[in-house]
Amino acid sequence: MKHIVEHDEWKLICRQFDPTLHMARESLFSLGNGHMGQRANFEEDYSGTSLSGTYVGGIYYPDKTRVGWWKIGYPEYFAKVLNSPSWMRLSIHFEGEKLDLAQVQTGDFYQELDMQESVLRRHSMVKLKSGAVLKIQSERFLHAEQQEAGLLRYSVSVIKGEGELDLLSFIDGDVRNHDANYEEDFWEEVNSGIRNATPFLQVRTRKTHFDVAYATQHKIAMNGKQPEVLPEPHKQNRGSGIRWKIWLKQGDNVVVEKYAAIASSLNHDKNHLLTHVLEQAKSFKEQGYDTLLASHKAYWKNKWEHSDIQIEGDIAAQQGIRFNILQLNHTYFGNDPRLNIGPKGFTGEKYGGSTYWDTEAYCIPFYLATSPEKVARQLLEYRYKQLPQAIANAEKLGFKQGAALYPMVTMNGEECHNEWEITFEEIHRNGAIAYAIYNFINYTGKADYLFEGGLEVLIGIARFWSQRFTWSEAKQAWVMLGVTGPNEYENNVNNNWYTNYIAAWCMSYAREMLIQGLAEKPAETRQVLNKTEVQEQEWNHWRQQVEKVYYPVSDELGVMLQQEGYLDKEQLTTDQLNPAERPLNQNWSWDRILRSCFIKQADVLQGLYFFEDDFDLATLKRNFDFYEPRTVHESSLSPCVHSILAARLGYAEKAYEMYLRTSRLDIDDYNAEVHEGLHITSMAGTWMSLVQGFGGMRVKDGIPCFNPMLPNQWESFSFKFGFQDRLVRVLVNKESVSLELLEGEALEVRVYGNAKVLDPGSNPTWPRQTLGVN
Amino acid sequence: MKHIVEHDEWKLICRQFDPTLHMARESLFSLGNGHMGQRANFEEDYSGTSLSGTYVGGIYYPDKTRVGWWKIGYPEYFAKVLNSPSWMRLSIHFEGEKLDLAQVQTGDFYQELDMQESVLRRHSMVKLKSGAVLKIQSERFLHAEQQEAGLLRYSVSVIKGEGELDLLSFIDGDVRNHDANYEEDFWEEVNSGIRNATPFLQVRTRKTHFDVAYATQHKIAMNGKQPEVLPEPHKQNRGSGIRWKIWLKQGDNVVVEKYAAIASSLNHDKNHLLTHVLEQAKSFKEQGYDTLLASHKAYWKNKWEHSDIQIEGDIAAQQGIRFNILQLNHTYFGNDPRLNIGPKGFTGEKYGGSTYWDTEAYCIPFYLATSPEKVARQLLEYRYKQLPQAIANAEKLGFKQGAALYPMVTMNGEECHNEWEITFEEIHRNGAIAYAIYNFINYTGKADYLFEGGLEVLIGIARFWSQRFTWSEAKQAWVMLGVTGPNEYENNVNNNWYTNYIAAWCMSYAREMLIQGLAEKPAETRQVLNKTEVQEQEWNHWRQQVEKVYYPVSDELGVMLQQEGYLDKEQLTTDQLNPAERPLNQNWSWDRILRSCFIKQADVLQGLYFFEDDFDLATLKRNFDFYEPRTVHESSLSPCVHSILAARLGYAEKAYEMYLRTSRLDIDDYNAEVHEGLHITSMAGTWMSLVQGFGGMRVKDGIPCFNPMLPNQWESFSFKFGFQDRLVRVLVNKESVSLELLEGEALEVRVYGNAKVLDPGSNPTWPRQTLGVN
Repeated sequence: MKHIVEHDEWKLICRQFDPTLHMARESLFSLGNGHMGQRANFEEDYSGTSLSGTYVGGIYYPDKTRVGWWKIGYPEYFAKVLNSPSWMRLSIHFEGEKLDLAQVQTGDFYQELDMQESVLRRHSMVKLKSGAVLKIQSERFLHAEQQEAGLLRYSVSVIKGEGELDLLSFIDGDVRNHDANYEEDFWEEVNSGIRNATPFLQVRTRKTHFDVAYATQHKIAMNGKQPEVLPEPHKQNRGSGIRWKIWLKQGDNVVVEKYAAIASSLNHDKNHLLTHVLEQAKSFKEQGYDTLLASHKAYWKNKWEHSDIQIEGDIAAQQGIRFNILQLNHTYFGNDPRLNIGPKGFTGEKYGGSTYWDTEAYCIPFYLATSPEKVARQLLEYRYKQLPQAIANAEKLGFKQGAALYPMVTMNGEECHNEWEITFEEIHRNGAIAYAIYNFINYTGKADYLFEGGLEVLIGIARFWSQRFTWSEAKQAWVMLGVTGPNEYENNVNNNWYTNYIAAWCMSYAREMLIQGLAEKPAETRQVLNKTEVQEQEWNHWRQQVEKVYYPVSDELGVMLQQEGYLDKEQLTTDQLNPAERPLNQNWSWDRILRSCFIKQADVLQGLYFFEDDFDLATLKRNFDFYEPRTVHESSLSPCVHSILAARLGYAEKAYEMYLRTSRLDIDDYNAEVHEGLHITSMAGTWMSLVQGFGGMRVKDGIPCFNPMLPNQWESFSFKFGFQDRLVRVLVNKESVSLELLEGEALEVRVYGNAKVLDPGSNPTWPRQTLGVN
Repeated sequence: MKHIVEHDEWKLICRQFDPTLHMARESLFSLGNGHMGQRANFEEDYSGTSLSGTYVGGIYYPDKTRVGWWKIGYPEYFAKVLNSPSWMRLSIHFEGEKLDLAQVQTGDFYQELDMQESVLRRHSMVKLKSGAVLKIQSERFLHAEQQEAGLLRYSVSVIKGEGELDLLSFIDGDVRNHDANYEEDFWEEVNSGIRNATPFLQVRTRKTHFDVAYATQHKIAMNGKQPEVLPEPHKQNRGSGIRWKIWLKQGDNVVVEKYAAIASSLNHDKNHLLTHVLEQAKSFKEQGYDTLLASHKAYWKNKWEHSDIQIEGDIAAQQGIRFNILQLNHTYFGNDPRLNIGPKGFTGEKYGGSTYWDTEAYCIPFYLATSPEKVARQLLEYRYKQLPQAIANAEKLGFKQGAALYPMVTMNGEECHNEWEITFEEIHRNGAIAYAIYNFINYTGKADYLFEGGLEVLIGIARFWSQRFTWSEAKQAWVMLGVTGPNEYENNVNNNWYTNYIAAWCMSYAREMLIQGLAEKPAETRQVLNKTEVQEQEWNHWRQQVEKVYYPVSDELGVMLQQEGYLDKEQLTTDQLNPAERPLNQNWSWDRILRSCFIKQADVLQGLYFFEDDFDLATLKRNFDFYEPRTVHESSLSPCVHSILAARLGYAEKAYEMYLRTSRLDIDDYNAEVHEGLHITSMAGTWMSLVQGFGGMRVKDGIPCFNPMLPNQWESFSFKFGFQDRLVRVLVNKESVSLELLEGEALEVRVYGNAKVLDPGSNPTWPRQTLGVN
């Protein structure tokens, strides 16, 4: 845990430049607008350690996989969202001396990410070796509505000294992925230069042949007026720019506004891409910086009105939840069906920017409650479109008859992950994809989605599980051999309880939906039956299998076992660990981690979270009490689940501890890796831990239900959720819980099991109750 | 299984050029002399598919490892014996047309590897596009005593046509490893050119900075006389040569003799290396081709006199065993303590040419019986010298107090293998290293080796196992979690029976040797105790652990279980497999292989082979009957063990089948991979399956014992073995077993349990008995 930014309700702030924290801040202060995103790299030259990163959604490269020993079934490539050219670069010299923030002395340094406005600002005094002192200020944002626009306003003032300011503004296409398997250069230049005083660059990815084009227009002012200078053209490897040389005296000030247009061939014909960005840059300049900033702010104001969560009495918690909501909203806007949510969003290269099970397991609930229904639906359709590849993937592994195994990591439906223990074995991901369909129907009430792809996906998944179970003569039960559960600190185990459970659930749910469909929508259901060639005897077989699935349990301890043989391990708890050896994955050999009992992330508990209605509170308590002390939470996806379950059990302190850990995971860098980028998908988990954890919100039989609790550290908290064309606000304070219907028609709700109808304008209140098992 | 060569007692022969079998033959016809080796690549240009390979012992490169996701404990590099410059290359044009064997028409093609002489010969008629017909003949060998000498005699005769023969003889340093992780070029040129009409080349490996130098002298004759031509110098990237242009008429003949000297900085100062090879090449030329060939043949005649195995009545089996003995003898001469035996010897790049557990588990018995004692001792010392790295390796994984884990693959003692499931988990290799010490002492009677390193190694290994066992509260036993057994088609299993057994054996044996040492050699033993800081309570703890080791067994089936849970798998046998899907590793996904019950190589049975005295025949029979039908023998190390056990059980047909499979594994390409190189270490297994299997030879309490059987297909077989300064010949025919003491003093032996003293000159005979359990 580190102190990287100040506590503030609406901002990330740092007041001192610290090169050792620079990469962490580059991640934390990242901007994004769904179409693209950028780490908070300095605009100026910086010779210190930095991870420069600019990413354009959907632009990826099939990087040849790197494996020790190739085996059949391994994927050919690992798709990587590319580090793309940077639009915002400046190179500044004063009196011939380069302004390099790693070399000059800085004072009065200030950097902020304004979360309310999604604007990055920075100012600093810099003292050059010549003795000259400059004040620099920068402000930049990625426009939330005109998503191809990147805007920068940069100012240099001479506080002391005089001399020539050499200011180069350029597009820098000389970028590489830091995370490249064979140090390949993924880009080639199509065109670059300057047209009508507008530097431009068009580049193309090798192999995948995506084009991205950039054009930048500028306004420059000296002491508020157009300076009399001759702009000089600049050309470099994959890039171009404009240079101004201006003589400045003490007190003089130069301001540059940079209007960048960034567009890709995903959205435009390659042949017209360049014309398009040239026109766009011109249009942005004509609109003007202040106008664009105003419309950008207006967008975010509205966004926060619908999605803000307020916490009174705990500034760290307040800052944490807003940061999570902001960065989630930076990443995915839900307006492009080809995009999904990579674990690091637009803030780093790790995990390749591809789609993981995180989307279904963690992000769907957030989008269901905070975005129009079509957004979550679109995320489901993303997988439906990739069903043929999931079937092909299963075939490659030896499965038959339309069994579908969704990939662990994908960009276009093909598997990208290249470690067998994950690729072939972390198959529980298939379950999450079915669970998301259940979640969508349960929340929206729109069972019609079954006939728009849902049922086909459920059948493919059920078929996979049916074939993946092995009949054990020894146990006289169906066993699941050789899997990796959510806890990736175990590989190739037999009978991971979570995997067995979700597999059986998928088979039951698919069968149930088939039977229900035949009863309620026979024509539509028959169509699916014909298409998938599934027959009654197949789904009857699923039922027979489900009845004889083997589940590892300890009768003595009254807990489900993470996997067979888990109790053969040396049973230690995290309080016995040397704090200097954490996180374990940065200190212990993989061998030691694998053999230890320590758990990376919720595994049995993930199942108890998904399927809470199947188990009583006492069972949950026994399992939580057993597994929580063995969990090191070295996955970002872990603490949110523990927080939700702790809240349910009335473990207020644990729920709060886990909440802080999930909501401030990146801000406080719990896992010592924020420099690589943010944990975007787990941010949806933070939202869940507030709404489902402290808010205790569930939708049961179409009715929103609440069992709220309030951490002792808080005065109150409130959140809003959308539900079947309504918008509802929930306020929880020390005394009471109150709900308000802000939009839409009357709605039945339940708080602590007491039903009321929420009428428009009404604001009913329930006294707060204490939760938990005694 | 393919038909690649003719059956012949002393030769590999092929009479037709087939491009589809060319790479397989390049492997099979390989030459070697301990110092270096070479695949049977054509001397001439060849544009077809080929794996050109020349290897110089001990010259390796630390190729950066390639892993999907780096984890702590992974090695930095995979050491690779390098594909080195080729000394024998020719490039031939006639009338301006290139002689490319992939392009011209060949007739009367003949290629042989003379196993008796270790000489490679080839001749062929070739018809050029011009209509000209040439007869080409080549003969080459790597001198067995003057190990830096490569000799080639090459002849071209004009059968039809006339024109200019352009014959270039060169050293080709423009070579790459086909198996390079990042397509790096591993070599750089130090010097090349022509001095005193001698083309030379000196190259250096990057990173490791080994130098290898080449010099080639020539003799050329036209129709038996020195031709009147001006040799032209030739220079190319990393190489040089000499070109002759000679006008030939029909009936003319040109013969070139090439005398190559190849030496490395392992044996010579880098600064004098070039002078050395220039002098050597001169010396070879002065000795002359025929003289060198004669001394080479004499060496091999003597070698065969000591190591030949004769089989009457079965030419395929005879050819197989000689091929195995020849290629083993090509690979390791035992005269350089820095060298060891790579799984592919000098015949291919796979497995990096490094040292595996194969040496201890399979090769030691061969060298004990067929070479002077110092050879096997030197192989043990190789590991003793690497004990510090084995201790460091264990520390890297989290072990303490001098625990030693020998690497899975190594060149200099450091671990090179880069798959966690092997590197960290296939730890049974540690047991084989201890077992080799036991084997050596048992065979030679030289317990003094314990005080020359043996005991230190045993203590380090015992300490590793002691720490690697985990106390299971659940089982109230010591369990071994997360291992890969010899059967690499299972990874990360718990309680692999073989690993648990050999681990416990190591701890017992180390303790026994310590106690025995204290009783018999107290001073020497105390010295080891002081050095290793081992104390009585430590070895008492080993004993307590050994008493409570968990062994997975099935009481119902009466078999040891390969690992916990093995019986949960679908129990199939190999006769249920589709032959088109074999070998499985080339047809099934890794996922499917891992989950199936099929076994790559002897695992439980490897333990029953090593520790046969601990189990009765009925137990062996039950286990063999259970595991043999589940074993696909897709490791070259598998059939030999099955053959030995089958012989012991009296399963004559199975023993014979497995014998053919091991001895003709490469000749008949059972596993469809001979094109990559030969399976050198398993060739020692072939020898074992004859001597220990059919010969039934064991050394018990210092006495050689025999329980021979004779396959029905054979008339007789005979082998020789060295034993404590004696040389003994064993002959087994349909009626009897007879032994003859060829060298040394009288020796007690036992045949079928009946003891006799073998006096010099005597030739006792025992009637043959039938083996097996009823």
